[in-house]
Amino acid sequence: MIQERLNKVLKIMKEKKMPQMIVSDSNAIFYLTGKWILAGERMLALYITTNGHNKLFINELFPISEDLGLEMVWYSDTDKPVEILSRHIDKDVPMGIDKNWPAHFLLRLMELKGGSVFVNGSKIIDKVRSSKDEKEKEFLRASSKLNDIAVEKMIELVSKKYTEKKMGKILGDMWEEMGAEGHSFDPIVGYGANAADPHHVMDNSTVKEGDSVVIDIGCIKDAYCSDTTRTVFYKSVSDHSREVYDIVREANQRGIDKVKPGVRFCDIDAAARDYITEKGYGKYFTHRLGHSIGLQDHEFGDVSSVNTDKVKVGMCFSIEPGIYMPGDVGVRIEDLVIVTENGCEVLNHYTKDLLIVE
Amino acid sequence: MIQERLNKVLKIMKEKKMPQMIVSDSNAIFYLTGKWILAGERMLALYITTNGHNKLFINELFPISEDLGLEMVWYSDTDKPVEILSRHIDKDVPMGIDKNWPAHFLLRLMELKGGSVFVNGSKIIDKVRSSKDEKEKEFLRASSKLNDIAVEKMIELVSKKYTEKKMGKILGDMWEEMGAEGHSFDPIVGYGANAADPHHVMDNSTVKEGDSVVIDIGCIKDAYCSDTTRTVFYKSVSDHSREVYDIVREANQRGIDKVKPGVRFCDIDAAARDYITEKGYGKYFTHRLGHSIGLQDHEFGDVSSVNTDKVKVGMCFSIEPGIYMPGDVGVRIEDLVIVTENGCEVLNHYTKDLLIVE
Repeated sequence: MIQERLNKVLKIMKEKKMPQMIVSDSNAIFYLTGKWILAGERMLALYITTNGHNKLFINELFPISEDLGLEMVWYSDTDKPVEILSRHIDKDVPMGIDKNWPAHFLLRLMELKGGSVFVNGSKIIDKVRSSKDEKEKEFLRASSKLNDIAVEKMIELVSKKYTEKKMGKILGDMWEEMGAEGHSFDPIVGYGANAADPHHVMDNSTVKEGDSVVIDIGCIKDAYCSDTTRTVFYKSVSDHSREVYDIVREANQRGIDKVKPGVRFCDIDAAARDYITEKGYGKYFTHRLGHSIGLQDHEFGDVSSVNTDKVKVGMCFSIEPGIYMPGDVGVRIEDLVIVTENGCEVLNHYTKDLLIVE
Repeated sequence: MIQERLNKVLKIMKEKKMPQMIVSDSNAIFYLTGKWILAGERMLALYITTNGHNKLFINELFPISEDLGLEMVWYSDTDKPVEILSRHIDKDVPMGIDKNWPAHFLLRLMELKGGSVFVNGSKIIDKVRSSKDEKEKEFLRASSKLNDIAVEKMIELVSKKYTEKKMGKILGDMWEEMGAEGHSFDPIVGYGANAADPHHVMDNSTVKEGDSVVIDIGCIKDAYCSDTTRTVFYKSVSDHSREVYDIVREANQRGIDKVKPGVRFCDIDAAARDYITEKGYGKYFTHRLGHSIGLQDHEFGDVSSVNTDKVKVGMCFSIEPGIYMPGDVGVRIEDLVIVTENGCEVLNHYTKDLLIVE
């Protein structure tokens, strides 16, 4: 167990009067133990308690040789894992449940009365995870550094030679060469009208003169994610596209400038959104301004109009305004930031000047 | 909605006195509606009722143009989807819950008292899905046909030139060339000692003379999965490895020969396992004999010692005995079968004769 992180979680559990919790998410288990365990459909449960009796319930198909500093409870494919788990827990006190625990495990544990009441316990771990420690910040910087290199290379490759799908494959190879573990999410390379669809899935389109080209990519390096977007134009840019680009760029900057401890996420969203709205494009900015990031590309803490939480030192999230004119032009510009004492550190350094490539 | 499939589900719901159910799994939703919808972390809920009021709750980020034959309930990122869902359901009767619904949705629905009692409803859909209809059988055959071609090509490629990882990448390209959607699971190419680890993750190992080479691969073609394993030897084979191979091959055949309607899954497992045990290798066959397959590589219905369900016509599952001698040799031979009136149809046709490649 990584005691410093665990202690933060246990402190909040005590405050919330949640004496026990089941953690099933591999990212959260890695965060607390330093060990990656992927158990697929099999039950994997880190059981933590405020009195220090931590246990890991795990199928023997996933052997672990090192000492994780907790009790290991092994089961086999012919055992009933939730029954085994239920024999180890305190049935008379509240039980925190991992937000993503599959319902069938939870329903069975409820049948077995494995707790006096069941509540979503992930909020506690998510809140601790949201403020990155120094080691995590180093990993986030290193991951974004690779991402900046990749975005530059990808922009250099934009040409009629490569379909969107092919660009995605080239990027996959690039991560491997760079020593990254892979994509942190399905990358987006969108040409023209496809760039105007924020959820576009890469296809066999090729680029045409005047197209905006949205490149939204990220890698996982030493378990930490990066995520950046740049938009360039192929061969030429119309006045209208340039106007859209300049507005998105300014909105990105206004979002970044707004970040400092104590400001609410919704205020950061508004700083970018209000500017786009003022310029008449509000209805074409169809998503939240950003999302928190760390071990996962999307972590707890939306940068959105409905999140009234205040940002804290060490939080890491994206600032990614976009304008999407269906069938015409799409522009998105995205940077990651880490909140500092006085503002924020921007992790992406590739230029945001409007580029015309050929 | 695909009415014939839905009717089968509703019939069992009536028998089980479950008047309403939430289906959240994309595979189950595809099975019932014919539409693939991937909504990531956002709530996606197909709400079906025995009185025919079917509704789909979906985030407006995932637009659907066609008419799915049910009511669409759209919500946005600033809405509270479980609250919206709770206003549409009958709070005074039991509610079936998708086995994989993330706990935080279920816990919230329970807080809102969205049902008199909550039970795992997936068993009903899983049972209907387990007997494949004629259209599904065609898709399964076509997927396995591609897989047989790929396994042959992969075996031809075994050489010192390619690491395990590189073999995996070549296979990914192969699926694309063949028009498949991709891998149906993370493929395994394991050389020597790696072949003796049934959960080996491909690395940069290269093959050595005398190695067993386990090739466990599958694709998705028109949404249906294939999955087959062959084991070959590089340049030479020791007498001991040959003995192990012959035992696994015979166990595979005994498993297949046991399949017919009315036989229990555990009896099929035993047919293969008992033979391996009799030959003295029981403790080296460390996993279940097989798993059901269809839209997902692993579906409801283990071929294992604890599954006393009887097999039925139209079921499709794997027969994959293995012997794993740590640090030494690993052999697994896997075929998919579809249960017929009198026995089963084997979907894989690539030879199971012992092959020595170079």
